[in-house]
Amino acid sequence: MNPNFKRIVKLFQKLPGVGPRQAARFVLALMEKPDAELQDLGKAIQNLRKEISFCPDCFNISDPPADEAGNHLCMVCSNSKRDQGKILVVEKVTDLDSVEKTGLYNGLYHVLGGAINPLDGAMPDNLKIKELASRVGDMVKKNNQVELIIATNPNTPGETTSLYLKDLFQNKKGVSITRLGRGLASGSNLEYTDELTLKHALEYRK
Amino acid sequence: MNPNFKRIVKLFQKLPGVGPRQAARFVLALMEKPDAELQDLGKAIQNLRKEISFCPDCFNISDPPADEAGNHLCMVCSNSKRDQGKILVVEKVTDLDSVEKTGLYNGLYHVLGGAINPLDGAMPDNLKIKELASRVGDMVKKNNQVELIIATNPNTPGETTSLYLKDLFQNKKGVSITRLGRGLASGSNLEYTDELTLKHALEYRK
Amino acid sequence: MNPNFKRIVKLFQKLPGVGPRQAARFVLALMEKPDAELQDLGKAIQNLRKEISFCPDCFNISDPPADEAGNHLCMVCSNSKRDQGKILVVEKVTDLDSVEKTGLYNGLYHVLGGAINPLDGAMPDNLKIKELASRVGDMVKKNNQVELIIATNPNTPGETTSLYLKDLFQNKKGVSITRLGRGLASGSNLEYTDELTLKHALEYRK
Amino acid sequence: MNPNFKRIVKLFQKLPGVGPRQAARFVLALMEKPDAELQDLGKAIQNLRKEISFCPDCFNISDPPADEAGNHLCMVCSNSKRDQGKILVVEKVTDLDSVEKTGLYNGLYHVLGGAINPLDGAMPDNLKIKELASRVGDMVKKNNQVELIIATNPNTPGETTSLYLKDLFQNKKGVSITRLGRGLASGSNLEYTDELTLKHALEYRK
Repeated sequence: MNPNFKRIVKLFQKLPGVGPRQAARFVLALMEKPDAELQDLGKAIQNLRKEISFCPDCFNISDPPADEAGNHLCMVCSNSKRDQGKILVVEKVTDLDSVEKTGLYNGLYHVLGGAINPLDGAMPDNLKIKELASRVGDMVKKNNQVELIIATNPNTPGETTSLYLKDLFQNKKGVSITRLGRGLASGSNLEYTDELTLKHALEYRK
Repeated sequence: MNPNFKRIVKLFQKLPGVGPRQAARFVLALMEKPDAELQDLGKAIQNLRKEISFCPDCFNISDPPADEAGNHLCMVCSNSKRDQGKILVVEKVTDLDSVEKTGLYNGLYHVLGGAINPLDGAMPDNLKIKELASRVGDMVKKNNQVELIIATNPNTPGETTSLYLKDLFQNKKGVSITRLGRGLASGSNLEYTDELTLKHALEYRK
Repeated sequence: MNPNFKRIVKLFQKLPGVGPRQAARFVLALMEKPDAELQDLGKAIQNLRKEISFCPDCFNISDPPADEAGNHLCMVCSNSKRDQGKILVVEKVTDLDSVEKTGLYNGLYHVLGGAINPLDGAMPDNLKIKELASRVGDMVKKNNQVELIIATNPNTPGETTSLYLKDLFQNKKGVSITRLGRGLASGSNLEYTDELTLKHALEYRK
Repeated sequence: MNPNFKRIVKLFQKLPGVGPRQAARFVLALMEKPDAELQDLGKAIQNLRKEISFCPDCFNISDPPADEAGNHLCMVCSNSKRDQGKILVVEKVTDLDSVEKTGLYNGLYHVLGGAINPLDGAMPDNLKIKELASRVGDMVKKNNQVELIIATNPNTPGETTSLYLKDLFQNKKGVSITRLGRGLASGSNLEYTDELTLKHALEYRK
């Protein structure tokens, strides 16, 4: 393979979960596209920071960069119709999307930007937990009563983060902590369900 | 293939989920076994009904056939240390096993023998629901308060059965109905969780 | 679980690839069957050796036990219309079936009863190789020219066996040795084919 | 989601096999990268056509654009040590890579740019077949004898293309046509091999 091709393939391998094979396919596919498409995609990537930013409140994806005044909230935070007494805490923006797609949650969100994972050196300080604490404080002032819904993933880092947050907020006046239900997934079968999930299904029964 | 072999392979295909290929493998494997093993397995199958029976109370697998007096309860029903105020309702004995293996449930069980599925002609009368009703009645007499834990599968027939049971028992004095928790399975990932499971995870949050 | 049930489940676990879960399902399913079916299956297993035997020539499944005279050949060996100048060597009767199902081979077969696998203590003497040698000798006498088609599996034991057979027969007068073609499987994709298979695809090109 | 984010995600969905979910992950991952990386990737995409081109002879990936003189052949075509009497015909550059990675082929390649597939409107004229014909003509002039190795995929479009090429070249003087071997893939099992593959394994035996 020639050096230029190799170099560009390597650049695409920086995309999450993309190996050399898929990266090569991407480059070859792009070579078949009209030049206009290449220009659009290339510019969009170069200007990414100017075109997209994170919501200064919940760290969801937001409209053009927030100005000093911190305007330009995301579409959830800027929607006063959302229940200001509920805040659902997720690890990543893509998790927020999944919950939002169900159309069943009308409260606010908070994106931590990951989960506590000492192995990866992801400690509480690397996550938006301080920001969450001050936000919840403000919400309690306004609403007296706030539900903090922990929606971190049901794996080790997610559970570690969940425990950390419960610890942090459990004695906060006016804050009730809940965790997304654990148990049987739709369409699963009791007979083939792992013990830990059955354990949770028994605990979360109601 | 010769007729005898074909015939015997067909007999093995009556085992659940066993197709012609696997059935042929079974027969060929048995031909390699010492004759004593063939005699043991053959006799065990012929005497199956004499050697195993179902518990007259919960329809779990039980010791040698119950006599007229209806003794010979299964190991759960005959264990007075089990919580007599809890009854967990499953579709099949194998579901009961899965829950029992967790070692986290110390109440009683009731095996329905399937789930309501009009398409298969499986109607309430085909299931041990009358028996459940009279059992729960007796339990209330003894315990005043009984928890009926519905543990049918989270699929259409299981849900149909669950609704039917809730309907049947909801106004029964002294009976509180619960359903195994629904939501995120251990090790799953919020981002890839289907909407229905997320919906349940929100409902069952606590 | 009660001892009788446990014991019978254990008997079913002797079937190839059947674990405790599947074995339990088998037993529970049999308990739902009419007693006549249990008697049929049970008897068939007890009389397996009387009802089925292996062909004294090729060790394929055969009709009722061969008598001293060694009659009762399998349906292939007893069919004089099959090409008596071709012999395809497989590991197991189920492999013979797969080839026979294609309807594209009209020669004879020879079932080795496994493959050479020192780790499992499966040595040449445990396989029907001596029998193959004398058979091929007789075939050459009758046909002058015999094609020995090696159809052992394309895995380590199968390849070991293939090498052993090539070694054994390569200098035998009138014997031409062939190996089933190696290369791309139907519906596969060059891009995702492993190197070893591509190597064979290049070697076997024609 | 905000319009800019949506728009950029859509651009990434133009990459082969990338759906909205993965595209969103790509954009979010890029937002975490240092700006330098965004600039590199963006520029590389915008200048793709200047930095990479296809070999004017075999249509493999090549070094900077070929000039009028048609220099800048790919690394295979420009390597005089490669066997000039062999040409292996593939559908895509990624197929060429797979074969090249085996290190077992030292001839030339020809990338058709796809396969004949009337359903997709991919007809012979859309493929580099004319170019192949004239190339093979030149090779025969130089080498008297040329082996044309057809390595299109073993699926319907690939087989259609293979038949078309055999038809086209079979009477060309000095051209011998071969096809990559078809049959059992390494590590596969005779018992579970589909009939068509077994059929090929019998045909390609040697």
